[in-house]
Amino acid sequence: MTIFVIHKKKSDTMAQKPSIPKGTRDFSQTEMARRNYIFDTVREVFRSFGYQQIETPAMENLSTLLGKYGDEGDKLLFRILNSGDAFSGIDYESFRTEGESYNSKALSLKVCEKGLRYDLTVPFARYVVQHQGEIAFPFKRFQIQPVWRADRPQKGRYREFYQCDVDVIGSNSLLNELELIQIVDKVFNLLGIRVLIKINNRKVLTGLAEIAGCPDKVVDITVAIDKLDKIGLEKVEEEMREKGLDEGAVEVIRPVLQMTGTTEEKLSCIRSLMDGGSASGKVSEAGLAGVDEMERLFALVDAAGIGQAVEPDLSLARGLNYYTGAIFEVKALDFPIGSICGGGRYDNLTGIFGLEGMSGVGISFGADRIYDVLNGLDKFPLSLECSTRVLFAQMDEEVLPYLVSVATGLRNRGVACEIYPDRTKLKKQFDYADRKKIPFISINGGDETASGVVNIKNLNTGEQRSFLKEDIASMAEFIQE
Amino acid sequence: MTIFVIHKKKSDTMAQKPSIPKGTRDFSQTEMARRNYIFDTVREVFRSFGYQQIETPAMENLSTLLGKYGDEGDKLLFRILNSGDAFSGIDYESFRTEGESYNSKALSLKVCEKGLRYDLTVPFARYVVQHQGEIAFPFKRFQIQPVWRADRPQKGRYREFYQCDVDVIGSNSLLNELELIQIVDKVFNLLGIRVLIKINNRKVLTGLAEIAGCPDKVVDITVAIDKLDKIGLEKVEEEMREKGLDEGAVEVIRPVLQMTGTTEEKLSCIRSLMDGGSASGKVSEAGLAGVDEMERLFALVDAAGIGQAVEPDLSLARGLNYYTGAIFEVKALDFPIGSICGGGRYDNLTGIFGLEGMSGVGISFGADRIYDVLNGLDKFPLSLECSTRVLFAQMDEEVLPYLVSVATGLRNRGVACEIYPDRTKLKKQFDYADRKKIPFISINGGDETASGVVNIKNLNTGEQRSFLKEDIASMAEFIQE
Repeated sequence: MTIFVIHKKKSDTMAQKPSIPKGTRDFSQTEMARRNYIFDTVREVFRSFGYQQIETPAMENLSTLLGKYGDEGDKLLFRILNSGDAFSGIDYESFRTEGESYNSKALSLKVCEKGLRYDLTVPFARYVVQHQGEIAFPFKRFQIQPVWRADRPQKGRYREFYQCDVDVIGSNSLLNELELIQIVDKVFNLLGIRVLIKINNRKVLTGLAEIAGCPDKVVDITVAIDKLDKIGLEKVEEEMREKGLDEGAVEVIRPVLQMTGTTEEKLSCIRSLMDGGSASGKVSEAGLAGVDEMERLFALVDAAGIGQAVEPDLSLARGLNYYTGAIFEVKALDFPIGSICGGGRYDNLTGIFGLEGMSGVGISFGADRIYDVLNGLDKFPLSLECSTRVLFAQMDEEVLPYLVSVATGLRNRGVACEIYPDRTKLKKQFDYADRKKIPFISINGGDETASGVVNIKNLNTGEQRSFLKEDIASMAEFIQE
Repeated sequence: MTIFVIHKKKSDTMAQKPSIPKGTRDFSQTEMARRNYIFDTVREVFRSFGYQQIETPAMENLSTLLGKYGDEGDKLLFRILNSGDAFSGIDYESFRTEGESYNSKALSLKVCEKGLRYDLTVPFARYVVQHQGEIAFPFKRFQIQPVWRADRPQKGRYREFYQCDVDVIGSNSLLNELELIQIVDKVFNLLGIRVLIKINNRKVLTGLAEIAGCPDKVVDITVAIDKLDKIGLEKVEEEMREKGLDEGAVEVIRPVLQMTGTTEEKLSCIRSLMDGGSASGKVSEAGLAGVDEMERLFALVDAAGIGQAVEPDLSLARGLNYYTGAIFEVKALDFPIGSICGGGRYDNLTGIFGLEGMSGVGISFGADRIYDVLNGLDKFPLSLECSTRVLFAQMDEEVLPYLVSVATGLRNRGVACEIYPDRTKLKKQFDYADRKKIPFISINGGDETASGVVNIKNLNTGEQRSFLKEDIASMAEFIQE
């Protein structure tokens, strides 16, 4: 009994052990340096193509978000309790379904008017419609912000994560598609990741369903084709039959599954299929328009001299619900992680908010996956490891003004430096330099101050040099080499 | 009746007019460029002093946040509804207070376990305690992230806004205070804002209350002194009397209210008061320790050659509940907007999470107010206005590959450029350049392509030049001048 009371008292007075909500993360200084390296790289590339950054609030009205991501998406929205007296004046009994159960969906709408953004696409559409009068179209924007989803957390899937979207809206030109491919090419060149850029076109998929005689089955067909690499030709055909395609339709689609060769050969094969050369002999205008677009885009890609591999791939099935033209997907060639980047053209993104006829095309960079690829391939620059170049050890408080003056001089020349703030054992100060991966240390006592000298040692090579206090330029050169 | 029905039908089918929650903001590309200019500036300065960036999740457990900001703060927390079936199994009747009223506070704890962060300080304390094993102390970190408060929105006060905090924890040295002052000095020098940096010390305030014979009235005294500029000596003394100070106490404090002169004179006046020289003749050890700190700090400030004005100010009353040493406040000299930056030393920030004895000191930059000052004083660099340097007009789709090749060359030399994506009237393309403030335009048709020439015109001066297609270097020079 006494033991119980003591125990209880202890846990009462003990401070809570702090933690963060599941599925969320802290970013340490190393992780931030690496993430900033990715974001700084994409930002620079986006800007070089005339894209400009915007931001939208974390909270959107639920009326903006609901119904845009399907029923599943609605369930994954984080809702924010109305501030003030959220629960007053609500007749709970009317929401009771049975026993202790309540209609949570209806009740949550009563007490929550706002939610956290689920992606950057819907807020972007809302932004374009709300600010259409201030925007110079074609509107080239990028946005790098966190989004929140109440998904079940698991390895590599978080409830808060950054999205990084680049879109142009208000232009039909294929030049936009080309520039997005150039952007992808340049970003991954700069990051040192070899990728394969796959390109599909929604109109070709529509055409394929048309010549197969089942225009309503475009999603079933594409989803089946998408599994070709994994399950093989026979199983794909089996799945199509299960979805209700007859033998004639399967026969029309077979050449697509067996298609090989160069980009040119593939595109020419697709053109012939769409132009009456398939088993059904049918012609698809949509399909031909799609092949036209793909051919023109690949011609531009050739002329632009893209360094990374680009190829047509009819099995790309992403975003079929909203993409209307080009579809993109990017895979890392040397690291098995799935798609690290993807997007496409949509014709009516802003229609949901009442602005019709705005065609756009965009790509989203998967920041977490790109991080994992760089990490896995050990491609993060070593320079990200250290931020401070030199640590001035503190031997004596009297020396502080001397060190402050030297450090200030170095900072004015762009050299990041620190003075160890406390007078403590040198070992501890060296440990600090070691943990922060600071490559140079400077130890100066009364003698150095008296003679106006600064000693600096390269901790990696062991080289040590002495400088005149005034010769900041030479110090900076030594430290930055 | 018919009209009503038509009206109803119309509003049913009409898309919703999009808006954002009150107190939140969209940031346009211009606003983002300006905000990034501020953040990039502080970030560079923080880094040059060895501070490193971290981030914490937007959502924290409510157990981390509640009770840290007082009752008022608890009410201003945005709470996040538990995902899934948040309302099941809750006996609402037990939360009923009277009639249709419910105990919202207790009920919200049942349905919400998480909240949006209210500031960066509590998450930072939580971070330090949770990751103490991985951190190299003294821990110098900065953090630039949005925070959320369910405050009543009004001009200049938002429900979502960025905070920008820089703190060092795990060191008692006054060098940290000096470096924060150096950081403030450098940031505002770079931004071109003249400021006054005011410094107080909590121990001196404690000492003042002690020599006045009312050690429990330190907050009342400071709050009253804080109003000196606004209401004058007599009203301040009146307020102190109302708060229960007797005539002797008021007499002890009067010299502080009448204090003038240089920093040296002020500090010497305070020292004499603390050392038995006041009307009460009392000596305050705390007060003397505070004066010692202030004198040593001002000596360091002198030695470091701070360019902005720095002065002692005993009326600084901010953060009295948690600051234990130095207190800082920064005001813009040429723009009336109150404090744009502030902070101080705290001795037990992490104690709330069970880690005792960690002294720290930090400063928070008010991003929104700094933005307003730069805007009001017209100090944003003109270069922020334009991001793209040159627009290639599109006369003919045939010319596209030619333009793509030239634009790629320029981008590789660091020149941001755009090709107008659609073939449309030149007037529209010029309008686009104008709205995006693009300073150069390049118009090339079949003739130029045939002869391998690129025409570029400076839209500000009217100067036009022709370049050989291969001479990217000269083009870049012309465009960037």
